[in-house]
Amino acid sequence: MHRTKIRIVEDALDANNTIARANRADFDAAGVGVVNLMSAPGAGKTMLLERALPGLEGVRVGVLEGDVQGSYDSDRLASLHIPVAQLNTDPGFGGECHLDANMVRSALPALPLDELDLLVIENVGNLVCPAEFRVGETARAMVCSVTEGEDKPLKYPLMFRACELVVVNKLDLLPHVDFDLDKLLYNIQAVNPGAETMLLSARTGGGVAQFTDWLAGLAERRPAEARTAGTPA
Amino acid sequence: MHRTKIRIVEDALDANNTIARANRADFDAAGVGVVNLMSAPGAGKTMLLERALPGLEGVRVGVLEGDVQGSYDSDRLASLHIPVAQLNTDPGFGGECHLDANMVRSALPALPLDELDLLVIENVGNLVCPAEFRVGETARAMVCSVTEGEDKPLKYPLMFRACELVVVNKLDLLPHVDFDLDKLLYNIQAVNPGAETMLLSARTGGGVAQFTDWLAGLAERRPAEARTAGTPA
Repeated sequence: MHRTKIRIVEDALDANNTIARANRADFDAAGVGVVNLMSAPGAGKTMLLERALPGLEGVRVGVLEGDVQGSYDSDRLASLHIPVAQLNTDPGFGGECHLDANMVRSALPALPLDELDLLVIENVGNLVCPAEFRVGETARAMVCSVTEGEDKPLKYPLMFRACELVVVNKLDLLPHVDFDLDKLLYNIQAVNPGAETMLLSARTGGGVAQFTDWLAGLAERRPAEARTAGTPA
Repeated sequence: MHRTKIRIVEDALDANNTIARANRADFDAAGVGVVNLMSAPGAGKTMLLERALPGLEGVRVGVLEGDVQGSYDSDRLASLHIPVAQLNTDPGFGGECHLDANMVRSALPALPLDELDLLVIENVGNLVCPAEFRVGETARAMVCSVTEGEDKPLKYPLMFRACELVVVNKLDLLPHVDFDLDKLLYNIQAVNPGAETMLLSARTGGGVAQFTDWLAGLAERRPAEARTAGTPA
């Protein structure tokens, strides 16, 4: 029975990867760099985007918001006057805990891909399953915060391993929590040697420019012909 | 295809409920009250237990720790000199994001149920799937924190609806975050009218006695004959 379960799961991941490759081909054709942004609930993904995206100069950005229910985050981001599409996972029984490639594919018609250089996919808040499903992204990044405890890389290694960038948020709270920042950074490197880390506070804005720069760099990772064709006049 | 998926999921939940009922029968026979304790990663479940459990007088308590990987939380709780069993979900492909009834059943032989009045099952940190799987518990409770944002009940309604008690933790950080406590409490009641709420800080210990009292009350919900037989001499 265990073997059967693994087989079904592997088939599902194979099917997901096939659709993820189709998404990636569409992203490449449109000349858009894509980040799959993940975190635990409440780590501050949306506030980070609110602070970082206005700093992007000459980069046309859109956001795909993944939530189990509601449109609270997309409503917040719509005030930035950028294209935002909401994707709710609750039609999938009780609420899927992650985005998969097919869900993302179904939402793409709601976004003007050809007019974007960068697409941010804000995943469902969850440190487990989102790491298992590629959606066609160029890069994966995650946000953790100093209120969550320095043991998280050891408890959720797949997520920390799946991401090339780990943003450590809520640095402004550091004086008020029992949190060993060095130990967190050590634990991140233990599960994902070479991972890029960034320390910032979305609330105060301190350090957010690093993340803005990283996003701008991601847009530059698009194929060269797309960059030439897609650069705004 | 969508219909097939729903059918498979319903079958899986039916199978889970059957095993959950068997677990519950075993808990009742042993005379143990059981709480399924859930939260997002880093909300402070383990620290809350570290602070609350030593205050239990005349209640024999054990803990079942659910984590994707590692035994960090069970190591912390073992220092309380109570029975603690670790359940890792990672053999189930990449790491299951929740405990189900069968996983809990497989771990029960590691706990001396007949010598307990109360069992705390600390679920995997996740605000989505754990709410969908009963494990045979007497009651479900969750911990959220003032660092997570007051919108969480609206974004993860199934979790907030599944629990009869919502503990709001990290009250000591309230002066340092932009958090509207009244709005959180309003949102909790909006999705789960009548839910019991408790405000506390596991870090400072302030308000933790309420949770200790609630746990003691849970042990009293066991069948009367079990209470008589199970009370320590």
